[in-house]
Amino acid sequence: MLLRSALQRLNLAATHLPTTCLRTFASKHREIPALTRDRYPVQRGAFAELTDDDVAVFRSILGGNDTARVLTAADEVQDYNIDYLRSVRGFGRVVVKPRTTAEVADLMRYCNERRLAVCPQGGNTGLVGGSVPVFDEVVFSLQLMDTIERIDEYAGIVVCQAGCVLANLEEQVGAKGLVMPLDLGAKGSCHIGGNVSTNAGGLRLVRYGNLHGSVLGVEAVTADGRVLDLMSNFKKDNTGYHLKHLFIGSEGTLGIITRLSMFCPTASRSVNVAFLGLRSYDHVKQTFLAAKRGLGEVLSSCEMIDAPSLDSCTRFFGLQSPIEKYPFYMLIETSGSDAGHDEEKLTRFLEQTMEQGLVQDGTVTNEPTKVKNIWKLRELIADSLLADGYCFKYDISLPLDQFYDIVLAVRERVGDMAINVTGYGHIGDSNLHLNVSCARFTPEIYASLEPFVYEYTSKLRGSVSAEHGIGFLKRKYLHYSKQSEPLRLMRQMKQLLDPNGILNPYKVLPPEHPTDSATAH
Amino acid sequence: MLLRSALQRLNLAATHLPTTCLRTFASKHREIPALTRDRYPVQRGAFAELTDDDVAVFRSILGGNDTARVLTAADEVQDYNIDYLRSVRGFGRVVVKPRTTAEVADLMRYCNERRLAVCPQGGNTGLVGGSVPVFDEVVFSLQLMDTIERIDEYAGIVVCQAGCVLANLEEQVGAKGLVMPLDLGAKGSCHIGGNVSTNAGGLRLVRYGNLHGSVLGVEAVTADGRVLDLMSNFKKDNTGYHLKHLFIGSEGTLGIITRLSMFCPTASRSVNVAFLGLRSYDHVKQTFLAAKRGLGEVLSSCEMIDAPSLDSCTRFFGLQSPIEKYPFYMLIETSGSDAGHDEEKLTRFLEQTMEQGLVQDGTVTNEPTKVKNIWKLRELIADSLLADGYCFKYDISLPLDQFYDIVLAVRERVGDMAINVTGYGHIGDSNLHLNVSCARFTPEIYASLEPFVYEYTSKLRGSVSAEHGIGFLKRKYLHYSKQSEPLRLMRQMKQLLDPNGILNPYKVLPPEHPTDSATAH
Repeated sequence: MLLRSALQRLNLAATHLPTTCLRTFASKHREIPALTRDRYPVQRGAFAELTDDDVAVFRSILGGNDTARVLTAADEVQDYNIDYLRSVRGFGRVVVKPRTTAEVADLMRYCNERRLAVCPQGGNTGLVGGSVPVFDEVVFSLQLMDTIERIDEYAGIVVCQAGCVLANLEEQVGAKGLVMPLDLGAKGSCHIGGNVSTNAGGLRLVRYGNLHGSVLGVEAVTADGRVLDLMSNFKKDNTGYHLKHLFIGSEGTLGIITRLSMFCPTASRSVNVAFLGLRSYDHVKQTFLAAKRGLGEVLSSCEMIDAPSLDSCTRFFGLQSPIEKYPFYMLIETSGSDAGHDEEKLTRFLEQTMEQGLVQDGTVTNEPTKVKNIWKLRELIADSLLADGYCFKYDISLPLDQFYDIVLAVRERVGDMAINVTGYGHIGDSNLHLNVSCARFTPEIYASLEPFVYEYTSKLRGSVSAEHGIGFLKRKYLHYSKQSEPLRLMRQMKQLLDPNGILNPYKVLPPEHPTDSATAH
Repeated sequence: MLLRSALQRLNLAATHLPTTCLRTFASKHREIPALTRDRYPVQRGAFAELTDDDVAVFRSILGGNDTARVLTAADEVQDYNIDYLRSVRGFGRVVVKPRTTAEVADLMRYCNERRLAVCPQGGNTGLVGGSVPVFDEVVFSLQLMDTIERIDEYAGIVVCQAGCVLANLEEQVGAKGLVMPLDLGAKGSCHIGGNVSTNAGGLRLVRYGNLHGSVLGVEAVTADGRVLDLMSNFKKDNTGYHLKHLFIGSEGTLGIITRLSMFCPTASRSVNVAFLGLRSYDHVKQTFLAAKRGLGEVLSSCEMIDAPSLDSCTRFFGLQSPIEKYPFYMLIETSGSDAGHDEEKLTRFLEQTMEQGLVQDGTVTNEPTKVKNIWKLRELIADSLLADGYCFKYDISLPLDQFYDIVLAVRERVGDMAINVTGYGHIGDSNLHLNVSCARFTPEIYASLEPFVYEYTSKLRGSVSAEHGIGFLKRKYLHYSKQSEPLRLMRQMKQLLDPNGILNPYKVLPPEHPTDSATAH
């Protein structure tokens, strides 16, 4: 209850604070989680143990007296060992903070020679336990690599180091009339290098596509300390194999991204948000198609929220829905270069969908504060469900024809073991967030959910991790979306690029020994 | 002169024919080129020689009596041995035409065991000699793999075999209110599998981004006949390494793409084209920025044409420019969901840029025939320059600040050895087509151009092949855009996926022996 009232106060006092503040606040006030090695049946790899001599070498590489760049004090390294959701905790004894690619390369070369395992870390906002050590890996924090090298307003390009915080980039490119092609709840602390390493999705994907399209080039340091220059400032560059994609979404297991260049679209002057009430999922699907056709090029977000999701959010955060109760809601955003045109398109779209009986009720706004408040109804759902006690979270891609069926199927299966079974997410990208909240974790509800959810998704050839990645926690589910041949090729890539397996071990690839899994004891 | 007048007649008679007809016509009436092995100093790899037994096995894999699927007659295989530009010619003795992935896999497995080299071929419209044999490679034509499996109008996805012709796909997805995210002059004959294998760029890239963003999944057959299922129907799928990108742009050297799924944006109802006259390159650059800002989300093409390019095109094809003469021209296209809004944006943009003195003159149209005629002024430039006799063609990406300087530098260098030194291309994607035409190839003009053009591009960290790829003809220039570490990793990828080197040999990767190069004797 303390957490709840504190969050409510914060929420009331800080209408204009980004929601990331709330998220960070919520996360900081939970207990220190159990060590991952105690909670999950995972075995340490045959890596070397850190010695004082190693620490001395790190210090010498990072310039001797600068103690703030080699952390070893227990209280200083703790934050780097615990993930944002506080679901996993490693016990890395040292955190190094390089400033340059050359420093990353020197550190990496040394660790490879010494067989010291390494955990690269950006803003540590990942949700699958990928960004913190599992055992005692050396944490490479890219925090200090936050230089924006160049913004080209003509071509629409930003070139920067990997440790730049997304919100800072957004501000800097915004000043040149550009926009970052991705937007996340965690933008106040996540790093662009982490975004690229995890192929982060987010709220603008329906408009600007994924990072494989937007990233123009990367520079990466491989496990043996080589610098791989795959930088390019061009959208068109067909000179040989497109190797940069190996590092986009491989979650730091094939190399550490140190610099990158990204295409930035032209910023939109006008933003409108509509919040709609609908009677059925089928109406949601039809309305999405109508939005694609009617709003066309100005459609920038298309989100679906079911009634239990919105109820949870409004209740917990004391927020007000702008419309009456309906089984489903949609949040539709337009961004465009002409406010009048966008409004006209949106109004016509709403008139038509209401006339057709697809949309029952709706509200539209372009006032920044109201826009923000409507977005809160969507962005705070995840946190509100956590407050029920324990929440099973699934981030899946499913065909639109069967998009919501899984929520109904799960609701029936778990019955009154759950407090809430809800579905919401980016219908514009076929990405559903299925959440099952309960008072506490029990083996019964767990057994009822898994592998059911993964098998269900797999049968529809869906993705068992749409945007969050695999990290440590989802390794054993990878085979539900990837067959044995692709898995074999992934292992070959890992072997080729990191023969000693020191780069972010225990992540992404399924455990070699079936006992090493991410099922909690 | 015969060619010239024939083309003129065809042009006059066929205003509504797609320009690809003209291109094919032009290509068919040139002489049979010399064999590649005679013209270029390249050595045959240690592959097996085809025997009658091999042909019999191919026939048995492809169903015995169906002789149309295993071609061996000299006149039948000839077209598969000569590239579109008629710059290279192999002497493959057999062409196989599988219909299914399983057939591709069986053929491939057999060729790998026998160490028979293989040349995968789509529509054979490539410009760098990548799609035909260099020696006697077995041609795998994907012509018969042209099934469209599924079009999902809600999610905007087409799933199809690799041999589908782009224009057919365009028509079929168009009937569902969708559009293919790429458009090329060669769309009447190029295959979607070839487009993906070469990461084709084209005219819509400024709006819909590149194929790494649009391709949702591929199925590929590896050199040893394994089927790699990397299919996905989702824009968000973060389950392990993103291996499909290895096959996008590797030009058939790592595997043969057999099926794919692609994201298709919503089709635009309204298309407007503006043709503008400008005084300087600096005005072109400023106008591009103004277009990005003023037209925003409806901008769908932004092309630059210099005066010598337009002159060559109008003169050779007897076409009329819609405006007076200027040093530079721009072709700007908008596509949107509301004709009125788009026209308003375009008119305002033109008024503003003319008031600012950036644009001197211009014409705007949304009549389909006029739109097509304006596009011809851009699309036929390449063919008109060929008519001067011989034409050196460079397809490079350059920073916008120095985009046109290279044309001036080359013009000064080659002096009166050239008939035309022209620059045109996709300024919206920083992609310049630099053309140097002359009466005939001479070692003097060649020495004056190369390596100058590549060194110039390399110094600006540009790309020496923006959209055409490397193929056979550009292998020795790859190092101007890629350093030794990436080249080393490319070779490692090739070794991993095709240890016997049978897949499209002599392509993409630089020759191991420096004497094997693509410099004509």
